[in-house]
Amino acid sequence: MSNRSPSYAEIEVVKNQYSDRDYLIKISIPEFTCVCPKTGQPDFATIDINYVPNVHIVELKSLKLYLQGFRSVGIFHENVTNKIIDDFRRACKPRNIDVVGRFNTRGGINTVVESRWP
Amino acid sequence: MSNRSPSYAEIEVVKNQYSDRDYLIKISIPEFTCVCPKTGQPDFATIDINYVPNVHIVELKSLKLYLQGFRSVGIFHENVTNKIIDDFRRACKPRNIDVVGRFNTRGGINTVVESRWP
Amino acid sequence: MSNRSPSYAEIEVVKNQYSDRDYLIKISIPEFTCVCPKTGQPDFATIDINYVPNVHIVELKSLKLYLQGFRSVGIFHENVTNKIIDDFRRACKPRNIDVVGRFNTRGGINTVVESRWP
Amino acid sequence: MSNRSPSYAEIEVVKNQYSDRDYLIKISIPEFTCVCPKTGQPDFATIDINYVPNVHIVELKSLKLYLQGFRSVGIFHENVTNKIIDDFRRACKPRNIDVVGRFNTRGGINTVVESRWP
Amino acid sequence: MSNRSPSYAEIEVVKNQYSDRDYLIKISIPEFTCVCPKTGQPDFATIDINYVPNVHIVELKSLKLYLQGFRSVGIFHENVTNKIIDDFRRACKPRNIDVVGRFNTRGGINTVVESRWP
Amino acid sequence: MSNRSPSYAEIEVVKNQYSDRDYLIKISIPEFTCVCPKTGQPDFATIDINYVPNVHIVELKSLKLYLQGFRSVGIFHENVTNKIIDDFRRACKPRNIDVVGRFNTRGGINTVVESRWP
Amino acid sequence: MSNRSPSYAEIEVVKNQYSDRDYLIKISIPEFTCVCPKTGQPDFATIDINYVPNVHIVELKSLKLYLQGFRSVGIFHENVTNKIIDDFRRACKPRNIDVVGRFNTRGGINTVVESRWP
Amino acid sequence: MSNRSPSYAEIEVVKNQYSDRDYLIKISIPEFTCVCPKTGQPDFATIDINYVPNVHIVELKSLKLYLQGFRSVGIFHENVTNKIIDDFRRACKPRNIDVVGRFNTRGGINTVVESRWP
Amino acid sequence: MSNRSPSYAEIEVVKNQYSDRDYLIKISIPEFTCVCPKTGQPDFATIDINYVPNVHIVELKSLKLYLQGFRSVGIFHENVTNKIIDDFRRACKPRNIDVVGRFNTRGGINTVVESRWP
Amino acid sequence: MSNRSPSYAEIEVVKNQYSDRDYLIKISIPEFTCVCPKTGQPDFATIDINYVPNVHIVELKSLKLYLQGFRSVGIFHENVTNKIIDDFRRACKPRNIDVVGRFNTRGGINTVVESRWP
Repeated sequence: MSNRSPSYAEIEVVKNQYSDRDYLIKISIPEFTCVCPKTGQPDFATIDINYVPNVHIVELKSLKLYLQGFRSVGIFHENVTNKIIDDFRRACKPRNIDVVGRFNTRGGINTVVESRWP
Repeated sequence: MSNRSPSYAEIEVVKNQYSDRDYLIKISIPEFTCVCPKTGQPDFATIDINYVPNVHIVELKSLKLYLQGFRSVGIFHENVTNKIIDDFRRACKPRNIDVVGRFNTRGGINTVVESRWP
Repeated sequence: MSNRSPSYAEIEVVKNQYSDRDYLIKISIPEFTCVCPKTGQPDFATIDINYVPNVHIVELKSLKLYLQGFRSVGIFHENVTNKIIDDFRRACKPRNIDVVGRFNTRGGINTVVESRWP
Repeated sequence: MSNRSPSYAEIEVVKNQYSDRDYLIKISIPEFTCVCPKTGQPDFATIDINYVPNVHIVELKSLKLYLQGFRSVGIFHENVTNKIIDDFRRACKPRNIDVVGRFNTRGGINTVVESRWP
Repeated sequence: MSNRSPSYAEIEVVKNQYSDRDYLIKISIPEFTCVCPKTGQPDFATIDINYVPNVHIVELKSLKLYLQGFRSVGIFHENVTNKIIDDFRRACKPRNIDVVGRFNTRGGINTVVESRWP
Repeated sequence: MSNRSPSYAEIEVVKNQYSDRDYLIKISIPEFTCVCPKTGQPDFATIDINYVPNVHIVELKSLKLYLQGFRSVGIFHENVTNKIIDDFRRACKPRNIDVVGRFNTRGGINTVVESRWP
Repeated sequence: MSNRSPSYAEIEVVKNQYSDRDYLIKISIPEFTCVCPKTGQPDFATIDINYVPNVHIVELKSLKLYLQGFRSVGIFHENVTNKIIDDFRRACKPRNIDVVGRFNTRGGINTVVESRWP
Repeated sequence: MSNRSPSYAEIEVVKNQYSDRDYLIKISIPEFTCVCPKTGQPDFATIDINYVPNVHIVELKSLKLYLQGFRSVGIFHENVTNKIIDDFRRACKPRNIDVVGRFNTRGGINTVVESRWP
Repeated sequence: MSNRSPSYAEIEVVKNQYSDRDYLIKISIPEFTCVCPKTGQPDFATIDINYVPNVHIVELKSLKLYLQGFRSVGIFHENVTNKIIDDFRRACKPRNIDVVGRFNTRGGINTVVESRWP
Repeated sequence: MSNRSPSYAEIEVVKNQYSDRDYLIKISIPEFTCVCPKTGQPDFATIDINYVPNVHIVELKSLKLYLQGFRSVGIFHENVTNKIIDDFRRACKPRNIDVVGRFNTRGGINTVVESRWP
């Protein structure tokens, strides 16, 4: 799953009742887990998503299921963070967005990946 | 209560004795609770309101009663935060204002909603 | 004491030996107490004063006595913060100043008032 | 509801698969709310329940619903803590138990109530 | 007020509905202030009271007013802590009690006084 | 997997070079995940294992793989904690041991399970 | 000053008004400094003194001056902690006492010395 | 090793799959150690590296080995921080980068060195 | 020592090996002590020095000895902070610098002084 | 070095001037590093040593050098902790002692080893 194909899982959206204004929605998911493609060992991270919605906001339960879809997927820290921002943008077309993945220590090294659009 | 009708509860104001200058009032209410319209389960949040008053400042006891008015109301995180900023603006017509709702974890997801005017 | 008359207490000043440059003095007083004019109950706050002195700096002992002068005074959060900045400016004529009053929780509500000049 | 009648709400139990040994289950509910019988104002607390199960353990969803049953009930801090321990004991007959209610600040006073059995 | 005469202020009590058991009530008052009898300067403290009630529990509003009664009283740290435990015992006759006064730094020294009965 | 059959995964041991004395080994694994047997949703926990070794100590890499074996297993909080202590005892026969599972918030409730032997 | 001669500085005492009971006085002085007898470099520490007074309590201002007397004195961590407990006992004859010196990091090593009597 | 020669150790890179966008990678290594060239004593630091990759990202295992290469090297705080940024730039040619070395207390002094490019 | 004469103590410098670039050196000294010129009592502070070096960097051991030179000097908070920045500039001629003195509580008041150049 | 031979490095002692009493010396060394005998990778730990001295106390500089002697030694967590307590006992013959090694996370697992005597 290191290539950039669309995701296997659906992020659903609902109508934004306040689309006439810019406001910020900050979502934090401290229970993200995927698999290291090199070692086959599980990786753990907190994923933070901040976005200004346009005509849709993301439905949280479907977002949770989408993120759980990575549980058995082998993917690097840098790629999973960028993939989430791409899938999220495709789903709800926000005015702007940033995604931060904070990965647990491996071999004495902590890694954080931050991607933003536009 | 997901539509944008005026609120059922009255926020009262008193005269701002220092309306000749810009200064900031920051109010934090860590005891906010409403009801999830989807599951009927209670939601809990901290509501932060920061504003620069114009000719009136908000009377705190009436603000408390206004916020307690949501205790049995089914309303989404995004909507309640935007409704509070609208009701607050209508009540005291501040020079500027932002409202932040920090909602407790649900299903492993934390949500924060930030709305500001102008 | 909710009107804007000059204060009953004297803030003293001493010569600023480094008035040829801009530098910042930050004073924090975590032991401020006055009285709520509505309920007659004591209020507690931390007062933070940050200023860039001009030809004088404030003498700290007189500032302490000045602030203790509010111990039995009935005055609202917004008014006391703005009164302190006015009295402080009158006493030492700083190049700029901000005063922040952080008041303890009352009825589940925290209030912070921030005033700055110019 | 200040008298000691049995509770209106049902705490359900399931079989303890390890009843041949003593082990401790610690449950913490930071989202408890009831009503002050004196002022009619909402109270907020964290309820901690620690117990050693006997032949049954408490089913968590029913416990959540039981505690939500206090949302509109007027009851003092001391009474609600003791009532919870009594209802919990009646439901699952633990080997031992303690219940701690940590109530939010009111009028500058924090209150914690601790009850244990036997 | 350094002698041991009864206090000028009344701590009221209400009936303990669970006097058939031992349970612990922990009260914390972070807003205590009195006056140093030596310097005339205000002192600030947090007062913690933990007690196991007998047939009465202390009514919190009267306790608050009782403690506010020290606001203009000159009294040493050691004496005020011991006086509070004596007045509290006289008022509600608890099964046991401890009182802790945590006083703010003076001259680079922090002082805590702990008294318990029996 | 809610029954008490032996575990599918092998915890390996190595010789304890200091078995002539009692000393304590404390292991903490903040990255434990299994599945809720009721909802099929992932659960997350920190597992703490403290033991006094006898003639063997547990080899950490095999312990990690053993715990990863729960990643797709549906099992309740109480059962998984007790199963780990049983499997660990079977593997290295410690002089004494306790296992604590600290599970992430679900529905506003935190759960900790503590089991010890003997 | 590494020998055990009586101290050059006087700790004064005042009458204990509550000598009919055992209560605890805890004093913390985070601003202690002396000199390393080996390197001549200043050392810094927090000194904690906990004691149950008998007929006298220590007067805090004289204690401060006594401790300031070490400012230019070369003395090891272990000796200064034991010397303080001896001087304190000689001055106020407490029912019991412990003294803890928490010294700042030197060469990557932190040292704490704890002495108690009886 | 205080001169500016290229490093003895190789930092390896892999292809950046999202080189069409700017995103930030933050790496923190709290286990860095080298040797003080003056005293021969070991120094300890946390090294933080933040960079926006271009066509390559750094492979973390080779970075770990590269940093372990300093374990027996005598080098000053300022030089090692600047050397790491130079070696890192040479290896992966990032769009921009900053390196921060936070060194443990020596002789009561903490030192942090921050270097950034461009 | 309240006048602005050059300091009695020498801050030494060494060559900056990376003077071809701007980078930041942050030094924190939590063990600063001098004497209050008014009361003769010791004052305690943390001194933070941040500077971008030019052709020289400050040698840390000489800086420590320079700061220890204030141990018996009577000088006000505002003056000592400004004197340190002047002496430091004279010694190493940095591209820019700021000095912050954070002084311990006196009479319930904390003071921080911040001076920067240019 | 996994066998139990005496250590290659000398811990020196000095006379305990207060050997007529029991008091506690607590030493914490947050900068310990050795090598994993399995992977050859460096390990990092905080070593805490608490002891009641008899006729000698340990000289801290020699203790630092002794601990630095492990910098290139391959040794397991359990063995190094027990070896330190044995070497320390041999050097200063304390009345009692405990040694705790807190090792940094490896593979998502933290390990703490605690050994005490007698």
